[in-house]
Amino acid sequence: MNFVDKYLEHAKIKKSYLCVGLDPAIQNQREKNTIPKEMTKLEFMINIIKAVEKHASVIKINRQYIIGLTIEEVKEINKLIHSLGMLSIIDHKLGDIGSTNDSAIYWFKEEGFDAFTFSPFAGNTKKATLTAHKHGLGIIVLTLMSNPEAEYQKKATIDSNPLYLYIANQIKEASSDGCVIGATGHVSKEDVALIRKKVGDRCIALVPGVGAQGGSADSLFFHFGAKTMVNVGRAIIYSTDPKKEAEKYQKMFNEKQKEVVRRRVRF
Amino acid sequence: MNFVDKYLEHAKIKKSYLCVGLDPAIQNQREKNTIPKEMTKLEFMINIIKAVEKHASVIKINRQYIIGLTIEEVKEINKLIHSLGMLSIIDHKLGDIGSTNDSAIYWFKEEGFDAFTFSPFAGNTKKATLTAHKHGLGIIVLTLMSNPEAEYQKKATIDSNPLYLYIANQIKEASSDGCVIGATGHVSKEDVALIRKKVGDRCIALVPGVGAQGGSADSLFFHFGAKTMVNVGRAIIYSTDPKKEAEKYQKMFNEKQKEVVRRRVRF
Repeated sequence: MNFVDKYLEHAKIKKSYLCVGLDPAIQNQREKNTIPKEMTKLEFMINIIKAVEKHASVIKINRQYIIGLTIEEVKEINKLIHSLGMLSIIDHKLGDIGSTNDSAIYWFKEEGFDAFTFSPFAGNTKKATLTAHKHGLGIIVLTLMSNPEAEYQKKATIDSNPLYLYIANQIKEASSDGCVIGATGHVSKEDVALIRKKVGDRCIALVPGVGAQGGSADSLFFHFGAKTMVNVGRAIIYSTDPKKEAEKYQKMFNEKQKEVVRRRVRF
Repeated sequence: MNFVDKYLEHAKIKKSYLCVGLDPAIQNQREKNTIPKEMTKLEFMINIIKAVEKHASVIKINRQYIIGLTIEEVKEINKLIHSLGMLSIIDHKLGDIGSTNDSAIYWFKEEGFDAFTFSPFAGNTKKATLTAHKHGLGIIVLTLMSNPEAEYQKKATIDSNPLYLYIANQIKEASSDGCVIGATGHVSKEDVALIRKKVGDRCIALVPGVGAQGGSADSLFFHFGAKTMVNVGRAIIYSTDPKKEAEKYQKMFNEKQKEVVRRRVRF
């Protein structure tokens, strides 16, 4: 089963469009949003996974927080995620030349992930998608980021298209499984509509920026429907009650999706 | 001492502009260019580092080949590299939002690297450079890649500049330590000249594509002089005599640099 179908199935069974961003920072790294001193990184990760399992369909782990974990350790984490009926994404933002991407994808598979995020900077989305699918992995491509410095992705043009629509077109041509669209700042409803039109029916939208970053996923649900996957990280994993927070977002996104379906029927 | 000065010093002492790309692939990963079956990844890496130490000033390790090594293991590798008078770069192509980049840079420092490669896709080169320098690390930014799919980096325009010169300008403004410029394919002498003009005097050029990929670093030496750092990977590390191959490239690059100095004096 391909990653898109896997996600639809998991979201349906779990009744949840919530992806929990699991980015464990140790206390030496920064002042706020860190794991408790008495806990190891693995213990913290296991606790969060168990806490949110009833309310999330996906766990997304960012590579930049787990540098130094062994293949075996990551495999164990992924076994736990799968045993609790969730999918697992490595947020790696892979973006190298072909043979090097192939190496990374080999290790993602060994680690037991279901999908990975990809940065299209090197332009080789098509080749990376082929390798991903050969390994039975999903590939989710950065398309329009919402951090303020990424606004140039709208201003830059290629073949008369803004860069982000050029990327959306590559995603369509490559049959990649998803696109990452930020939910804050300069990303407008019109941008989301244009991306949806380019990437076509098949594509999942992975949406960061909701929660601590204050963004809204409304226009994403409107255009991507059940293929919307909303990531919430810090606001859940560093809260005093991760289970309760996860439940809150699960309900919020379900309401949003219902509303969209209602409006579609009415108008 | 900043990374640019460190490189100039190391290149001078070692009499070498050679950076050895250490990308260890195990046999299951692919058919050609793999480490021998009877050897562990760490053993292979240690062997190569010892073999090339007289002829290289820098070792560049690509993250996509060492996923799963612990912080301690990487630290040991870097201690060895430093004890043999070389610098160490993690070729990570980091490119995430600010707080996540900060996390990665924290771990690069813990692992004992001197510098890292950065992908400017998210547009936040300035912030990443600030964090890098706060940790005493160098940052080398992808500017114009030479894989065929990356040619769009010349075609895409922003503020009337091609994307790769927009990036070069960000490097200059951020005071990043280096730019990555591919040595093959669509990267012309004129491109190199334009990048050099934009990034200014301070910047190192890290040049992949020479060796197995068949590129030439001539125009890089012409424009970047002693601030040229040429990466050769597969053609050295998977050869039957890595020391001899490293020596060959060391001599080749020294000749090239001498020739450039001679020509500059003459014309």
